[in-house]
Amino acid sequence: MHIGEFQRLIDRMYSERDRRRGAAKTFLWFAEEVGELASAIAKKDEANKATEFADVFAWLVTLANVEGVDLEEAVKKFSEGCPGCGEMVCRCEEKMT
Amino acid sequence: MHIGEFQRLIDRMYSERDRRRGAAKTFLWFAEEVGELASAIAKKDEANKATEFADVFAWLVTLANVEGVDLEEAVKKFSEGCPGCGEMVCRCEEKMT
Repeated sequence: MHIGEFQRLIDRMYSERDRRRGAAKTFLWFAEEVGELASAIAKKDEANKATEFADVFAWLVTLANVEGVDLEEAVKKFSEGCPGCGEMVCRCEEKMT
Repeated sequence: MHIGEFQRLIDRMYSERDRRRGAAKTFLWFAEEVGELASAIAKKDEANKATEFADVFAWLVTLANVEGVDLEEAVKKFSEGCPGCGEMVCRCEEKMT
């Protein structure tokens, strides 16, 4: 599934309530899912981990819909290499640890 | 770009350092980007908003690589309708506000 396809799927599924709720309140629900993801990773909860990743992704996409951002367009910054060093295999000195 | 393609692109670009760093430390960098996204939304920083969405997405994908989760597979839970109510246009009573 293309990133754009998924964004449009989520838009059709949730956008009416998302836009009514607005960005700040949508961010709260996104943050809740981020917490659940942290928990699943910390507890090594293999059964639920994938589902928590999916939920965070879906809420990120829903937030992008509310904010009018095309996620597929946005990630083009990575297409030609790391935005930091320009390499397809990153050689940046930052965030090594 | 397919979700899987993006995940593989990020894997090639960052996975050596990601796996050396491990999940918990990778989550810290992901959380930093989530904070930058919150800031861009709160400040209505239109110039940087798309880039912050892209960064959060990239770090989510990098975390999925470290944790061995296929994100494209994981979001199939949404393909046939909202996981909560089963509808393509969600009718859940939860998270309305």
